[in-house]
Amino acid sequence: MAFGTASPRRAPGRLKSWELDEARLRQLKVNQNRLMDELHHTCQWGTGERWGPRDTETGMRRLSLSDADKEARDWFVDATRALGCDISVDAMGNTFAVRPGREQGPATFAGSHLDTQPSGGRYDGILGILAGVEMLRVLQENRVETAFPVGVVNWTNEEGARFPISMMSSGVWAGDIPIGHAHALQEVGGGTATVKSELERIGYLGLIPTSYEAMPMAAHFELHIEQGPILEKEEQKIGIVKGVQAYRWYTVEVIGQEAHTGTTPFGSRADALLAASRMICASHTAAADHGALASTGVLTLSPGSVNTIPGKVKFSLDIRAPSDNIVDRLEKHLKSDFDAIVSTESTKALPLSVTWRTDSVSPAIHFHKDCIAVVRASANSVLGGEALLREMVSGAGHDSVYASRRCPTSMIFVPSRNGISHNPKEYTSPEDCAIGAEVLLQSVLRYDGLRSNLNS
Amino acid sequence: MAFGTASPRRAPGRLKSWELDEARLRQLKVNQNRLMDELHHTCQWGTGERWGPRDTETGMRRLSLSDADKEARDWFVDATRALGCDISVDAMGNTFAVRPGREQGPATFAGSHLDTQPSGGRYDGILGILAGVEMLRVLQENRVETAFPVGVVNWTNEEGARFPISMMSSGVWAGDIPIGHAHALQEVGGGTATVKSELERIGYLGLIPTSYEAMPMAAHFELHIEQGPILEKEEQKIGIVKGVQAYRWYTVEVIGQEAHTGTTPFGSRADALLAASRMICASHTAAADHGALASTGVLTLSPGSVNTIPGKVKFSLDIRAPSDNIVDRLEKHLKSDFDAIVSTESTKALPLSVTWRTDSVSPAIHFHKDCIAVVRASANSVLGGEALLREMVSGAGHDSVYASRRCPTSMIFVPSRNGISHNPKEYTSPEDCAIGAEVLLQSVLRYDGLRSNLNS
Repeated sequence: MAFGTASPRRAPGRLKSWELDEARLRQLKVNQNRLMDELHHTCQWGTGERWGPRDTETGMRRLSLSDADKEARDWFVDATRALGCDISVDAMGNTFAVRPGREQGPATFAGSHLDTQPSGGRYDGILGILAGVEMLRVLQENRVETAFPVGVVNWTNEEGARFPISMMSSGVWAGDIPIGHAHALQEVGGGTATVKSELERIGYLGLIPTSYEAMPMAAHFELHIEQGPILEKEEQKIGIVKGVQAYRWYTVEVIGQEAHTGTTPFGSRADALLAASRMICASHTAAADHGALASTGVLTLSPGSVNTIPGKVKFSLDIRAPSDNIVDRLEKHLKSDFDAIVSTESTKALPLSVTWRTDSVSPAIHFHKDCIAVVRASANSVLGGEALLREMVSGAGHDSVYASRRCPTSMIFVPSRNGISHNPKEYTSPEDCAIGAEVLLQSVLRYDGLRSNLNS
Repeated sequence: MAFGTASPRRAPGRLKSWELDEARLRQLKVNQNRLMDELHHTCQWGTGERWGPRDTETGMRRLSLSDADKEARDWFVDATRALGCDISVDAMGNTFAVRPGREQGPATFAGSHLDTQPSGGRYDGILGILAGVEMLRVLQENRVETAFPVGVVNWTNEEGARFPISMMSSGVWAGDIPIGHAHALQEVGGGTATVKSELERIGYLGLIPTSYEAMPMAAHFELHIEQGPILEKEEQKIGIVKGVQAYRWYTVEVIGQEAHTGTTPFGSRADALLAASRMICASHTAAADHGALASTGVLTLSPGSVNTIPGKVKFSLDIRAPSDNIVDRLEKHLKSDFDAIVSTESTKALPLSVTWRTDSVSPAIHFHKDCIAVVRASANSVLGGEALLREMVSGAGHDSVYASRRCPTSMIFVPSRNGISHNPKEYTSPEDCAIGAEVLLQSVLRYDGLRSNLNS
């Protein structure tokens, strides 16, 4: 790759990261206007649906490996190279911009993704990358020298929207998704483009193997919008993300008996929709009792006629909890609840039945205690105390899930207005974006300082 | 119409209907084999899906005004004319076969329909017509003279399957559906054929106005399969149908807020599907309390993604009860229940809302006491007592609903195996068909006798 060559080494810094005390760290300020101007500048590539009158009040549609994605990637390469970084692109298009430190070694990374949902917003993923670039700018303008390299990584196809695997390329990097499988994935919607053909087409099929061994990371910090309502509701500014919830997805199928709504008394029915409705209600009650979540987002029935009792209903069931044990217990509880509903609703002549299919299992992720501690110290510093921060567990998956399998990792959440994401109206205020970026900056510097102390 | 001419008058009968005592009535036997052979003979026109190995083990697909329907109609005209009937065809293709009596006057009719659902069975409608023809045969072979004319009417497009109005032509006859509207109806599925063009094409666009004034009926008796499980479950043979349930159809729409299933705590959700599920459960509880029925056969939601809480759910609600008062009370009860569910599930920031749209209102139908009494006496006679009969309210609509608006009417139900209808597997045993046909025969004769006594 053309980008793979090293840029000239920078002159020794005025500030040494390993010498920064709390007071000096606090002086390293993110430039809020610059951060937001640059963020909105990059949203010219893949601008989406308009929701308000201002220039910046649109969503984004920047599908992975599209022309718009290529333009955003090119900007990322140019911007980080201009800030003194070496650029490496791997065989999945993951792009690592690394700013050299005093010593050789794996970099401490800020990472996220530049791709969006087809009807996404300006913050999910994008903020994490732009805050990383702003971090490089702050280091540059303050002539900070770090003990080890620091960098920013843009992961390919986090959304799984165009090519249907989420967190695809961090998954390949971690060794959990075979590269052949990822390369061969076809775009959704009937097109013939594959991940590999599109990587080639836009010039991002790099030569470096996609692997934690070929491109090790010392740590991975990800600033991300919360995508939920908790911080806003609690009037807090920073979520220190300790891990990611466990979740399991199931398809539950209830089989009853089609019958005429007018001629079939209740005692002679096997109403698959009534049983499914009771199950959905029961899943919420049980999940609340276990401190977990249960949700149904898809439900289909047949035959689908006003005067015919449904004989078959299928619904999705998504259960989540901070620990795998809780998910286990909730699954057991619900299987027993659903069996009880089926047996209560059945008559001798007309039995109902229920079957479960497990579609997806994602164990709980626990981030690294050092990274969590570093984020906590940084948030404390930026916010001047504990009142405006809280520990959280992420409800959604992120590239940090796969990163955490191969290096110390944590995440930083900032508030999402109305808890909305994956929507053009996704919004985080400039102030909150800047606070998050400052926590990210400090976290990377503190972690670098930690490495230096451990090594000295 | 060619059929409209009168056939030669029959010689005076050996038996006079107005002189028949209970013992002699009981001697007038339906020929079960002849009835069933003829029924299955007519099922050569529009034979449907096979469900068993025997010749007669198929369903029916005889859409109204199709070629198959024309062939069945031609058979009906030929068979009834051969039995001494005058044939009249009206402007909707309703076909009245009338056997003259001692005196002039409107006939007492057995009526039903020869059309079927696209995936229907051999009994719904067909049995009522075939039992009427068998009635004519029994009268013929026993040389019975009736006081007034008796007849059989085949109503056009009862099913509303090909042309989407149920009980279409009895509705025009009763003055409830304008003939212009009915004539202009296009076939479903994108074809350009209309009711009128198809009536012309198959030669059944009659000259007689479709009206209870142009073709008055003294009474209308309809033998029909129950289409429900009650008679089979109670091991009874005859349902004396006192009327037809009131029903109302609604579309209920619940609006909440789309949100991520993983990042949105229960307290921050406005889950439209959870609320809808609670409503469906509540509708069953309330309907049971009121002695009514409530059913949901259609439910759609958006956006329909496993990890997105549905922001909008629409579902059909079909409520039925023997009286309009009960339906009124149930509707009120459910509106209050649904409002309560919406307010319990709402949070201040994220309100849910529910709206009702009424799609269809069908008031309760109460059949005529004289006709009900005549059916009861006939069923008592045929079954030798009260044990095997019961009074019922029809859950489904029939041509008798419209007939009852313009003449004394009642219906006779026979058991449906497993309560199944509108399905190839619809089945009623030959014995039960014959019992029903014998009750129909006696009912028409008893009603004719009643008219004679009233007039004497």
